[in-house]
Amino acid sequence: MTSKYIDIKEEACEANKMLPASGLVEMTFGNVGIFDSEFSVFAIKPSGVPYEKLSPKGMVVVDLDGRVVEGKLRPSSDTPTYVELFKAFSPKAVVHTHSKYATAFAQALVPIPAFGTTHSDYFYGDVPVTRKMTSGEIAGEYEKNTGLAIVERFKKGRINPEEMKAVLVARHAPFVWGDSGKKAVENAKALEICAEMALATIALNPKAGSIEKALLKRHYFRKHGAKAYYGQNG
Amino acid sequence: MTSKYIDIKEEACEANKMLPASGLVEMTFGNVGIFDSEFSVFAIKPSGVPYEKLSPKGMVVVDLDGRVVEGKLRPSSDTPTYVELFKAFSPKAVVHTHSKYATAFAQALVPIPAFGTTHSDYFYGDVPVTRKMTSGEIAGEYEKNTGLAIVERFKKGRINPEEMKAVLVARHAPFVWGDSGKKAVENAKALEICAEMALATIALNPKAGSIEKALLKRHYFRKHGAKAYYGQNG
Amino acid sequence: MTSKYIDIKEEACEANKMLPASGLVEMTFGNVGIFDSEFSVFAIKPSGVPYEKLSPKGMVVVDLDGRVVEGKLRPSSDTPTYVELFKAFSPKAVVHTHSKYATAFAQALVPIPAFGTTHSDYFYGDVPVTRKMTSGEIAGEYEKNTGLAIVERFKKGRINPEEMKAVLVARHAPFVWGDSGKKAVENAKALEICAEMALATIALNPKAGSIEKALLKRHYFRKHGAKAYYGQNG
Amino acid sequence: MTSKYIDIKEEACEANKMLPASGLVEMTFGNVGIFDSEFSVFAIKPSGVPYEKLSPKGMVVVDLDGRVVEGKLRPSSDTPTYVELFKAFSPKAVVHTHSKYATAFAQALVPIPAFGTTHSDYFYGDVPVTRKMTSGEIAGEYEKNTGLAIVERFKKGRINPEEMKAVLVARHAPFVWGDSGKKAVENAKALEICAEMALATIALNPKAGSIEKALLKRHYFRKHGAKAYYGQNG
Repeated sequence: MTSKYIDIKEEACEANKMLPASGLVEMTFGNVGIFDSEFSVFAIKPSGVPYEKLSPKGMVVVDLDGRVVEGKLRPSSDTPTYVELFKAFSPKAVVHTHSKYATAFAQALVPIPAFGTTHSDYFYGDVPVTRKMTSGEIAGEYEKNTGLAIVERFKKGRINPEEMKAVLVARHAPFVWGDSGKKAVENAKALEICAEMALATIALNPKAGSIEKALLKRHYFRKHGAKAYYGQNG
Repeated sequence: MTSKYIDIKEEACEANKMLPASGLVEMTFGNVGIFDSEFSVFAIKPSGVPYEKLSPKGMVVVDLDGRVVEGKLRPSSDTPTYVELFKAFSPKAVVHTHSKYATAFAQALVPIPAFGTTHSDYFYGDVPVTRKMTSGEIAGEYEKNTGLAIVERFKKGRINPEEMKAVLVARHAPFVWGDSGKKAVENAKALEICAEMALATIALNPKAGSIEKALLKRHYFRKHGAKAYYGQNG
Repeated sequence: MTSKYIDIKEEACEANKMLPASGLVEMTFGNVGIFDSEFSVFAIKPSGVPYEKLSPKGMVVVDLDGRVVEGKLRPSSDTPTYVELFKAFSPKAVVHTHSKYATAFAQALVPIPAFGTTHSDYFYGDVPVTRKMTSGEIAGEYEKNTGLAIVERFKKGRINPEEMKAVLVARHAPFVWGDSGKKAVENAKALEICAEMALATIALNPKAGSIEKALLKRHYFRKHGAKAYYGQNG
Repeated sequence: MTSKYIDIKEEACEANKMLPASGLVEMTFGNVGIFDSEFSVFAIKPSGVPYEKLSPKGMVVVDLDGRVVEGKLRPSSDTPTYVELFKAFSPKAVVHTHSKYATAFAQALVPIPAFGTTHSDYFYGDVPVTRKMTSGEIAGEYEKNTGLAIVERFKKGRINPEEMKAVLVARHAPFVWGDSGKKAVENAKALEICAEMALATIALNPKAGSIEKALLKRHYFRKHGAKAYYGQNG
């Protein structure tokens, strides 16, 4: 009998399997979740399972209350964070990695400045960092509170999750989203490249400053939205 | 029926396909254009198409007014920049990448100093950075103005594009040229290596200073021009 | 006739062969030792032998007095260090590498700060560095004294080797342990990743400080001990 | 008819072909020369020829006056430097690369400090840098003068080329030697690793200082000379 969630399970499996080859994850540090807007559930990687052993069947399906609705394995320990992101931002796909340079910025509590056009092609502004969590939040529903801290950061900063598809969780690592599993992984890869280049940029010129707003706008909207003129569509 | 532009389309296709293996580009960040001096046109990568899907037939041929003269796909969004470079500097081939270290220098608004003989073997002096563009230039014909800013930088600095086959566009990334698609890609690779070594050199000794003029000259002209004695030719 | 040490010889061989592919060792810089608690001996790599030539039969079995009890080749020159670690900390497996970033911290005499959750998932606190050795210790039984300096560091710092499965030997390189050869190599890999990210973190924000204790605890015990809830066990 | 230089031509070919896979060279930046003490000649890579096209037959044999005694191609442009090294230091093999980190130290005019035991296993002390060359030396027999500057550095510093098998040429790159082509390439690889780790060590702790003399001695002579006890020989 086929699962009615087969589409998201297949996409989640495929996108999770892209992670090791992407260079974004080591060991089992990283996962992708794919949302199904018809059923309001998402498929996510089972916790601690090596990528090469993943199959669509092994994906875990979770609803927006964080309950497993299909699958025999325990879902990623980050699942409650995903729940909050899917609830607040409604992306098709979320990816979480501990990719080296983006994670270094998260650990350093430093946003990734929009230094150039590469960054602007993907992210409309500096990539934000959440505030540090309180001991109470950590001792309580930690993973859920991580998600809430992300949502709070976007709300307080009036950041549009459609235009800023990435965030750094303080002391932790990035969460990134996109319009498909493949797109979310591409965005995570772009984030890592921009983080690596940003570190080198800071080393070369600590006073470089972020890219001028006009140039940020031009590059971002060259690739996104109604007036995009990059690629073969639109 | 064969295209009369078949030679440049084949060379452009081959050179564009060299980019991912070169380590210089990620995703679809990068392209090569090949000039045909007989017809005053160049063949360039179509915008946003993955490298593995490129074929000579899919290359787009553009004239020096920026009009597509052959090809069904939209050319690279950087095409108007290429037009200005082909018009002003007349190289056989131009390559544009967002290679990490060269891009970091561009973002930092810092020229790549000619620190050693590796650099001198390829580039006769520090690799220049363009000035920042104005809001008007960005809002207007942005890609064309990028090309004009490069040409202005060479004119004002009295830099000979025969001896300095690379430039960093401020906040953006490098453009590099050469006597063939293969040579241009080789120069782009050399630029990236020199940029990476320059960053490490600065970290080790911020006061190292550029290479002495005599040594720069010796190395550059060991490989270029009438008195070259490197390799098996000449 | 089969050796009664066949299990540890096979595990040692397999774990040693994992080293080159792990990216943790170059040339023959690195080895793994596997302990057998029944016989109080361990199997270790023979000195200077390339990894691809290792076989279970070629492993050297050594007792806790450092005497070879089986094997024709000379054991790793680091063997007396392993003896002290197996005696004092009783791990199943010990691995020694000169992996680049962890070694840089060891050379710089700087502990690897627990900057984030990646680190906390593996190591419960900053990874300690031993004190410099005296000329007498170096001239005498140097490798044994290296082991004693590690044990002293843990004793003086009241560090639990169950919760801190890694140490940096001053001027030298890391020693790492774990519950199996595979786990020890995984821990060594995690150490190297954390070291690389820590260097970038320091470059970005020298005042970042170590992770908050509550978050360190949460992440470490999410993966270790009775209340672990990461992965499919427990 | 077989060449009487067949042995060194084969070893030179094999060692030169090791360079690209070693990660030490890009493009055609690097070469190996192998000395034949019977005939006082050495075999070296032809200039500018890609590594994959090298054959023993294509190697160029040069005497200690720098004259080609066998081979149709032009020898490496660095040949006169090799002549001086073979004359003064009598190694079996010399290798020259522009490996990134060692070259960064050369460009920065900074010796590679002996920070740890990895370095001490290979090089008995800080790796020296030559003085800058004069305009006269550069305008004259530049490559020969490069060799003379190396020899001068060792003589003035009373450095024993048996114990320090590497040097950084100011503004240029390393030259490394060894008891065979394979050993020289191994030493060049060790130099690059030590240079990379040294840069990270300096970033972490600019006051780390070189390794203590006793430890340098212990590690170096653990692997070299009459009392070596590393590996299976001696």
